[in-house]
Amino acid sequence: MSIGLAEARRIIAAAEKKADELGQPMNVAVVDAGGNLVAFERMANAWLGSIDISQKKAWTSRAFDITTKDLGTHSQSGDQFFGIHASNDGKVMIFAGGIPLKVDGKVVGAIGVSGGSGEQDHAVAEAGAAAL
Amino acid sequence: MSIGLAEARRIIAAAEKKADELGQPMNVAVVDAGGNLVAFERMANAWLGSIDISQKKAWTSRAFDITTKDLGTHSQSGDQFFGIHASNDGKVMIFAGGIPLKVDGKVVGAIGVSGGSGEQDHAVAEAGAAAL
Amino acid sequence: MSIGLAEARRIIAAAEKKADELGQPMNVAVVDAGGNLVAFERMANAWLGSIDISQKKAWTSRAFDITTKDLGTHSQSGDQFFGIHASNDGKVMIFAGGIPLKVDGKVVGAIGVSGGSGEQDHAVAEAGAAAL
Amino acid sequence: MSIGLAEARRIIAAAEKKADELGQPMNVAVVDAGGNLVAFERMANAWLGSIDISQKKAWTSRAFDITTKDLGTHSQSGDQFFGIHASNDGKVMIFAGGIPLKVDGKVVGAIGVSGGSGEQDHAVAEAGAAAL
Repeated sequence: MSIGLAEARRIIAAAEKKADELGQPMNVAVVDAGGNLVAFERMANAWLGSIDISQKKAWTSRAFDITTKDLGTHSQSGDQFFGIHASNDGKVMIFAGGIPLKVDGKVVGAIGVSGGSGEQDHAVAEAGAAAL
Repeated sequence: MSIGLAEARRIIAAAEKKADELGQPMNVAVVDAGGNLVAFERMANAWLGSIDISQKKAWTSRAFDITTKDLGTHSQSGDQFFGIHASNDGKVMIFAGGIPLKVDGKVVGAIGVSGGSGEQDHAVAEAGAAAL
Repeated sequence: MSIGLAEARRIIAAAEKKADELGQPMNVAVVDAGGNLVAFERMANAWLGSIDISQKKAWTSRAFDITTKDLGTHSQSGDQFFGIHASNDGKVMIFAGGIPLKVDGKVVGAIGVSGGSGEQDHAVAEAGAAAL
Repeated sequence: MSIGLAEARRIIAAAEKKADELGQPMNVAVVDAGGNLVAFERMANAWLGSIDISQKKAWTSRAFDITTKDLGTHSQSGDQFFGIHASNDGKVMIFAGGIPLKVDGKVVGAIGVSGGSGEQDHAVAEAGAAAL
């Protein structure tokens, strides 16, 4: 099973609702089980540099079946995955905002959020993921 | 509103005046609200490797509406944005010298400076930004 | 002398046997003495992001005649090779899972493994290398 | 003034003599005042991954008129140039082995060496530079 456009729209809507509550405009992306982009939205005044980051956070979460927040904890200087950000042609994001989307414990896609602090990005991604 | 060529020339002239005062030749770039280059000048004997860096500092400051100096403080190993330099195809600079250009609190472009120490680059960028 | 397809198949089979024992699906790649890919297999449910990493770990181990684990110990912030991951167009992996393949003390290729922790990746690579 | 082929050959010969003394085969590159490659040699059994690194060390030393060793001391996590390795499309090397070539205090090119430890690379580059 893999995320489709209908689910992606619902996930993005839930994420944007949370972003509105936080008062921080976000870029939100959803990828399917193959890691390919299904849908993306940039809220008004969200950072331009986060268009790319949100999509890559989603890809990363699917590529390694892990939140980018958790991946980041293993990827700082001195940690076991330090240097992983140089792999996959720069697609690996190692800071909070990406979360795998699961159905019955199986990863079927991922959401990536970028536009605020790491804490805000992660909270918005969680709100989106909860809508699945 | 977005920075145009006339403003960019004035900003660059002010930055170069400061660079002359410091006795350090600089590369100076100005981007518009869309993050696209408006004007660039390399002063005589300025570092060749800084041609690219100055333009990317300007882009980064617009892309995240923040000085690259401040972005850098959040992007060292162990910080919340560590790894952001791997995003956006290598366009993200996380050291001092880029400053957003604002009109009435709204970002309308950015200046990026490279050619000296972080402190010098930032000072020259500030002088340029002040000319707007 | 250089690794050929027959040896690569044997090495990959041994690595996958070890991965099965560990209960962690892996991506396994073998390169020849020139650093070029000979064979690659992705086990069912292995991380998608590790397809690239396993191949680059193998390349790195041949490119510097060293395990990526050992290379990593010299490449953290503050170490003598910090920044090496930016070279060779992003092909240099500096975390465990790549091992040079030797015959009579001469490097004839390398194996790269990715799909689990650094410790698991290295153990699987060792099992593969031992099959040569 | 800029380094020409005759000077580059002499510089490389001196570097290789030093490498032979150290018993460590090296990759040696020389770039001119514009940062463009003039000559390159890979000694027998020198690391394949260092072909790229030696050339980029030479480019970096000319691009910033500084040894890559000294640039490295300012580019670790927490330092003022941290992140500079992400600029210039991956051409910036921040570890020892690159040295600017000067005539009458003016940079006319650079040498880049890779194939051993940072200390060895730097020593070989110094021997090459001394031949100018």
